[in-house]
Amino acid sequence: MRATVLVRPKPGILDPQGQAVESSLRHLGFEVGTARVGRLVDVDLQTDDRAEARTQLERMCEQLLTNPLIESYTISFEQGAADA
Amino acid sequence: MRATVLVRPKPGILDPQGQAVESSLRHLGFEVGTARVGRLVDVDLQTDDRAEARTQLERMCEQLLTNPLIESYTISFEQGAADA
Repeated sequence: MRATVLVRPKPGILDPQGQAVESSLRHLGFEVGTARVGRLVDVDLQTDDRAEARTQLERMCEQLLTNPLIESYTISFEQGAADA
Repeated sequence: MRATVLVRPKPGILDPQGQAVESSLRHLGFEVGTARVGRLVDVDLQTDDRAEARTQLERMCEQLLTNPLIESYTISFEQGAADA
């Protein structure tokens, strides 16, 4: 089963990369409000059980993929995967 | 309207960050296949027209947000936003 973890800076946390993107977009003539930059991790898991996959992904996020002090994450599964 | 651009390395393009994540996850005891790392950009747009928003976002991707030689992108809109 393939899953995607989306990692974003928490609200209020400084995001210089997002500020740079925002400013560059305006310089290019785009009318944008705030821009924030995060990262994503696509992971292929051995399990096909969605509940088990979610549990594993939450542990991965806590142990490696995110810094819980300054980042929040959401987990999404590839479309078409069955609910557990 | 808020939109999210997901930027991923194209298949076949070397992704050292993904390889490091993959290897670290295995060292931590997780059974994972491939892991790939990309980035995401949340953008607040002035328009509420989804077709117009998509056109603007595609131009942003071509001009600033992605390197089309080595990266692909997908655009998604916040849930609840109406289709154009």
